[in-house]
Amino acid sequence: MFSAELRDLTATTWRAAVEHRFVGEIGRGEVDPAVLRTYLVQDHQFVDAFVALMGAAVATAPNASARLVHARQLGLVAGPENDFFDRALDALDVPFADRTDPELLEPTRGFLDLMDAARGGGDHAVCLAVLLVAEWLYLDWAERAGAPEESVQREWIELHRGPAFTDWVTFLRLEFDRTAAGLDDAGRARVQEAFTRAVELELAFFDAAYDA
Amino acid sequence: MFSAELRDLTATTWRAAVEHRFVGEIGRGEVDPAVLRTYLVQDHQFVDAFVALMGAAVATAPNASARLVHARQLGLVAGPENDFFDRALDALDVPFADRTDPELLEPTRGFLDLMDAARGGGDHAVCLAVLLVAEWLYLDWAERAGAPEESVQREWIELHRGPAFTDWVTFLRLEFDRTAAGLDDAGRARVQEAFTRAVELELAFFDAAYDA
Repeated sequence: MFSAELRDLTATTWRAAVEHRFVGEIGRGEVDPAVLRTYLVQDHQFVDAFVALMGAAVATAPNASARLVHARQLGLVAGPENDFFDRALDALDVPFADRTDPELLEPTRGFLDLMDAARGGGDHAVCLAVLLVAEWLYLDWAERAGAPEESVQREWIELHRGPAFTDWVTFLRLEFDRTAAGLDDAGRARVQEAFTRAVELELAFFDAAYDA
Repeated sequence: MFSAELRDLTATTWRAAVEHRFVGEIGRGEVDPAVLRTYLVQDHQFVDAFVALMGAAVATAPNASARLVHARQLGLVAGPENDFFDRALDALDVPFADRTDPELLEPTRGFLDLMDAARGGGDHAVCLAVLLVAEWLYLDWAERAGAPEESVQREWIELHRGPAFTDWVTFLRLEFDRTAAGLDDAGRARVQEAFTRAVELELAFFDAAYDA
């Protein structure tokens, strides 16, 4: 399976991300408030690009049943789950300017570019690669994290694990592997590049919250 | 407002559609079962293309708040409203082959082409034009229809009227007018062509259910 191959290929970076200091700390509810603020302010900046990318996945899905799964997940992210950031940024007293137009850190800019390129390219396999890394790597770290008392940190973990989220990641893996099986070498190379870049950005994103 | 201009421009065809014999009959719950079967079998064939087009609207929306409205409506269409056709086609004893691969009537083929072209073109204004006609014209006829006892016909009407659906159509009109205001002549011509074609197809679609 191409997804397993790519995860092996990126194993060192992947592990450094899912075993990041941030994961241990959030699992105990002990992320330094300044770090958590930076992390969530930056993450908030690509929610819109992520929603747009999910829209592109709906538009480019190869069949009606896969399209419906993408569309339902999109409805969830845009609906019930959409107020997390408002509540979290309120709880952390984040000023208005940092909600609308913060200075973007390097990995944030990198993610925006990667997601916009995937969306704009109209290549379903590349869209899937970026979505897959974002969701699968988050499931992997969230499953390793504890269950803290503090509500912002707990909610951020719980948004990325549990049966429904696991099903969504399984769907993405199956779709990714099915799509990749139909690609030629150039197509697989494009997908591999997007996958690898996304894993590197996930690690850099955690690091950047501490370096800022 | 460009939406009002285009509706005036297409007024004769628009009125023939929303005052179609089908509208009177469905409002009394009296559409001939063979006609209703043809109509729903054909309509069912572009649900997937419609969902894909809504995905493209999410991907191409000009800002986060518009994108969320599109995404939530998509989640609704792909989620809670998605089993209408299964239930309706069951109730009408439609054979399996007519659910998966029926012979497409001319207006159905025309709609599929129009929606696929709008989606593939990545032009948000054209995506909006096709969505707007589909939803606005349906709201217009559904508001003229009665409230029949028979459940398939009643549900089809109720899916296209009421406060939530009216809000969605209002959003589409506002977004369409805002987007059109920023277009040059060539852009407006493209949008007008898509709008006009969609209105013609809506009328032809009602007619075709009786001619088949």
